[in-house]
Amino acid sequence: MALARSAAHAPGIDDVVAAHRALRARRPLVQCLTNTVSTNCVANVLLAAGAAPAMVDNPEEAALFAGIADAVLINLGTPTQAQVASMRLAAEAAQRAGKPWVLDPIGAGGLPWRGGIAVELLQFGPAAIRGNASEVIGLAGLGGGGKGVDSSADPAHAVGAAVELLAHAIAVSASGPVDHVVGRVGEQTVLVRVAGGSALLPRVTATGCALGALVAAYAAVAPDPLTGLVAAHTHYAVAAELAEAVAKHPGSFAAAFLDALDTVEEAHLRARAQIAAAVPA
Amino acid sequence: MALARSAAHAPGIDDVVAAHRALRARRPLVQCLTNTVSTNCVANVLLAAGAAPAMVDNPEEAALFAGIADAVLINLGTPTQAQVASMRLAAEAAQRAGKPWVLDPIGAGGLPWRGGIAVELLQFGPAAIRGNASEVIGLAGLGGGGKGVDSSADPAHAVGAAVELLAHAIAVSASGPVDHVVGRVGEQTVLVRVAGGSALLPRVTATGCALGALVAAYAAVAPDPLTGLVAAHTHYAVAAELAEAVAKHPGSFAAAFLDALDTVEEAHLRARAQIAAAVPA
Amino acid sequence: MALARSAAHAPGIDDVVAAHRALRARRPLVQCLTNTVSTNCVANVLLAAGAAPAMVDNPEEAALFAGIADAVLINLGTPTQAQVASMRLAAEAAQRAGKPWVLDPIGAGGLPWRGGIAVELLQFGPAAIRGNASEVIGLAGLGGGGKGVDSSADPAHAVGAAVELLAHAIAVSASGPVDHVVGRVGEQTVLVRVAGGSALLPRVTATGCALGALVAAYAAVAPDPLTGLVAAHTHYAVAAELAEAVAKHPGSFAAAFLDALDTVEEAHLRARAQIAAAVPA
Repeated sequence: MALARSAAHAPGIDDVVAAHRALRARRPLVQCLTNTVSTNCVANVLLAAGAAPAMVDNPEEAALFAGIADAVLINLGTPTQAQVASMRLAAEAAQRAGKPWVLDPIGAGGLPWRGGIAVELLQFGPAAIRGNASEVIGLAGLGGGGKGVDSSADPAHAVGAAVELLAHAIAVSASGPVDHVVGRVGEQTVLVRVAGGSALLPRVTATGCALGALVAAYAAVAPDPLTGLVAAHTHYAVAAELAEAVAKHPGSFAAAFLDALDTVEEAHLRARAQIAAAVPA
Repeated sequence: MALARSAAHAPGIDDVVAAHRALRARRPLVQCLTNTVSTNCVANVLLAAGAAPAMVDNPEEAALFAGIADAVLINLGTPTQAQVASMRLAAEAAQRAGKPWVLDPIGAGGLPWRGGIAVELLQFGPAAIRGNASEVIGLAGLGGGGKGVDSSADPAHAVGAAVELLAHAIAVSASGPVDHVVGRVGEQTVLVRVAGGSALLPRVTATGCALGALVAAYAAVAPDPLTGLVAAHTHYAVAAELAEAVAKHPGSFAAAFLDALDTVEEAHLRARAQIAAAVPA
Repeated sequence: MALARSAAHAPGIDDVVAAHRALRARRPLVQCLTNTVSTNCVANVLLAAGAAPAMVDNPEEAALFAGIADAVLINLGTPTQAQVASMRLAAEAAQRAGKPWVLDPIGAGGLPWRGGIAVELLQFGPAAIRGNASEVIGLAGLGGGGKGVDSSADPAHAVGAAVELLAHAIAVSASGPVDHVVGRVGEQTVLVRVAGGSALLPRVTATGCALGALVAAYAAVAPDPLTGLVAAHTHYAVAAELAEAVAKHPGSFAAAFLDALDTVEEAHLRARAQIAAAVPA
């Protein structure tokens, strides 16, 4: 697995552009162990953005496939006993094979059973954790909890929890109107805010889950998971803005967003990306 | 759980408008235990219409979450042993917590195993039952049966069966070209017909399932399940008409329908709703 | 089950038109045991094209429903132990009842567990096998393997493997830029190439899976599985061309493709079909 960045700077637009170019050139294969609501959206987002999906999530094949895939997404949206067994096997196999894997701890803060699973999976060293603010707070054990799967907390309030989770993952993000991404640059903990996007995005189910998959895809091609997170969030935000320019309601927005994930090229990224690095308070 | 209406009138357009306003104001959280074909559509319909979905359907969490959610949908489209166990737990927990839950008895008339499950779940007192005509007839034990999951019977022929099911649920609807909804107003059994809609709606999979989820959302905010059923059917029919005005084939209709569920406001409801109350023959 | 064609010719455009007419007239009910990514797309493709879906895939009901349905699709995309048990039961019941069933051996070449299941299912005599080139090669035991679920081999290279699989199935196709379909006409082995389509099709997830379901629908109404395969591939290719004429990116293409499956009539088939029969080398 890629180690934390040793470069002297937090990832910025040039790093995002390079990661985007690598994504399109290498078309990473992402193994997705995800919830039943999201499978179709996750696969279509990966295909539209320039990666390839494979939903191998049974205990018989999960570990084997983690050795074949370029990255793994583990999303706790609708866990079953069999899928949880697969998650353990895939996370362990990914760690052993040096493949980055991403944890999306849906509902981990409010539901003890899956919360326990999420904590258990941390032992396998996720490259990145991506959740909404209440999930990041919940996973870090700071309480909070969410209503259903949508965030009821401002991502800015989750930065402390995200930094705590750097004990387990190389980089962590809390999604929201402004995404907050934390990681390390050398010895320094950094916070990168990615603004932009669209208020229509959370009105289409599974777009958060699919962002987690795109994080995994970028983690497979970026020099480190922090850059991968920033690149995925930026690609997403810029695509959402392009989609909102042509669609004003959730049904047409969903189609326009897939179109835009495909359309986004370097020029769009440079014209629209809103990336700002800071040191967390 | 809300009791049967004691008001002197069957629900009409003013009640639908009030329920719609409450839906948008309160954004109820609906726990969905539904089939694998429908999860994405169900979640997107709830989000577009103004509610929030959470697909918690494992035995470990189903009962706990029924206490958190505002309403519960139980849809028998693709039952598994584990999901059926979750259905029992969620229905029982919803009843105990006084949360309305909705039964969608897909295929109950033609498939004995799930028919037995549907009948067993009736003991937990659903607020509403929503199905197509053959499912309502099948569940009431009047025979009939359906071809696959699509109705082969006219909803008008299911009114007797729907009234029989009022022994178990507060209100019952049979969907079709004209939806037939039955419930009680005081001591009086009433039939409310909701006309309109679009012939394209049944050509998009899971739109019937998603209507069941919208019924649950409305049951959480309406004064009683009968009003909730009439409001959900009316919101759906009006949105389908708006969608058909811009889309003539099922792919573009599916997106336009989600857009329209979002777009529908009081003025659309008042201009287009076709609600007619009667006493069942 | 329909036997191999005894007519003197390989299926051509007139046979495709007749099959398309039969599909629209009879609206066959297809039982689908398919992967979690594809359920929604599979159902919508069947509905748009003119058939009816039913996703009955639990062990309690799978065999019973195979006797009710007009055809069965078995897709190995995300197998679970329970679903595999259902697959055995449904395939056996379909064989016993003389209903055509279609095997889509996703990933069979690269993943030994499901490869073993696919081979085991062959004993129940599928009417047709539809896969991408690497899956057809993998299933025939010629090695090859695929990266994830997308084909990494040219369908032309899978013709030998497809012909080998005629020991188990009446007709076999390998999908790709030009689809290659093999079967028998009397004693003669024939190869039918279906060209056309769109490069956007594989950029929408589950469109390959849904083609398998459409093959099952056509197998239920065509005089034999070879004609059914050629008709399904042709309907698909022509619809993809119509969709590409109005949509240039995957999100809008997905909706336009469903519209086009509905739109396709005899005139479109006659104007655009690219069907060429040959004797395999």
